[in-house]
Amino acid sequence: MKTLVIYTHPNHSSLCYAFLQEVIKGSNENPNITELQILDLYEEGFNPILVFNEQKRRRDMYRDPDLEKYRQQLTWADQLVFIYPIFWGRPPAMLLGYIDQLFAANFAYRDGKGLMPEGLLKGKSVVCISTMKGPANYPLFWLHDAHKVLMKKALFSYVGIKKVKFFEFGNMEKPNGKQAKKLQKVNRYFQNVRR
Amino acid sequence: MKTLVIYTHPNHSSLCYAFLQEVIKGSNENPNITELQILDLYEEGFNPILVFNEQKRRRDMYRDPDLEKYRQQLTWADQLVFIYPIFWGRPPAMLLGYIDQLFAANFAYRDGKGLMPEGLLKGKSVVCISTMKGPANYPLFWLHDAHKVLMKKALFSYVGIKKVKFFEFGNMEKPNGKQAKKLQKVNRYFQNVRR
Repeated sequence: MKTLVIYTHPNHSSLCYAFLQEVIKGSNENPNITELQILDLYEEGFNPILVFNEQKRRRDMYRDPDLEKYRQQLTWADQLVFIYPIFWGRPPAMLLGYIDQLFAANFAYRDGKGLMPEGLLKGKSVVCISTMKGPANYPLFWLHDAHKVLMKKALFSYVGIKKVKFFEFGNMEKPNGKQAKKLQKVNRYFQNVRR
Repeated sequence: MKTLVIYTHPNHSSLCYAFLQEVIKGSNENPNITELQILDLYEEGFNPILVFNEQKRRRDMYRDPDLEKYRQQLTWADQLVFIYPIFWGRPPAMLLGYIDQLFAANFAYRDGKGLMPEGLLKGKSVVCISTMKGPANYPLFWLHDAHKVLMKKALFSYVGIKKVKFFEFGNMEKPNGKQAKKLQKVNRYFQNVRR
């Protein structure tokens, strides 16, 4: 199971970075995970700004040469792992700008005759690991789980990805002994996950 | 009523741009709207990437000198109008990067002793005008209105803004006579809106 981690946090002294370390450690102990690539969007200097106009057509985005290496990574991977903080109920602009450009028509999906498109990333699985300042049940009760709905239904399901696992960690800015337990939980998941 | 339009679309040959024109025309005929400023994030070359680390603390973002002119615009305005396309069920990364940086602690809200913070943008009103490719009822039925929930509850309510009006236009990539009617609807709204 080839695994691509798409990591989005500006600061390596963050809890997100600690989760990244556990994903790597757990994966290294898992015989099912044969290869691991890390894409650190901030360190990469990824440009999140989607541009399209008369010269640069949106319909050609799926073959934009500047994005070729990122498309190859996505095609290569069997498992996609997204690690990010929650800002205002959703992932940071940096990650959403990656999605705006990479999940292009004729690469991630193809419009067909039916109501729903054909998902071109089908067969892959996704894990989303997110941290937030507020309590973990705030998104569910107050926001009707908008973050999960957007990731799972508006995005992954549309491109054919059905297997989506979430780890949402709330109240994490005040470490109180729970952090170690949650890091361990992620480590264990990656030690054992299989296709 | 001083009005700030925050416009986010890469291409001026877009329906979003046509909506912008109607907002301007309608506002110009409205005696309640005394002043109008347009912030075109793409034309401005706005940098949507939120950076924070040991040198640049997130807690100082509310006084980042690079963002001072944008904070002044927000403070100045009584009414904020956001115009944007819907990508993957939510606004484009460019607009969300503006929000990530401008809606900073101690500028847009202040953490207090209670469960909810003090909203520092209270008294302002918001209008969101968005266009999307799919049918207009798709977000409501399939996505549990995640876009509106995120804008209204996770963002505007948090910073003290209670009055939020949405115009969501679906199926707009296939003009079939409805566009003119919808542009007119927005024009009329801005002709008549008052505090």
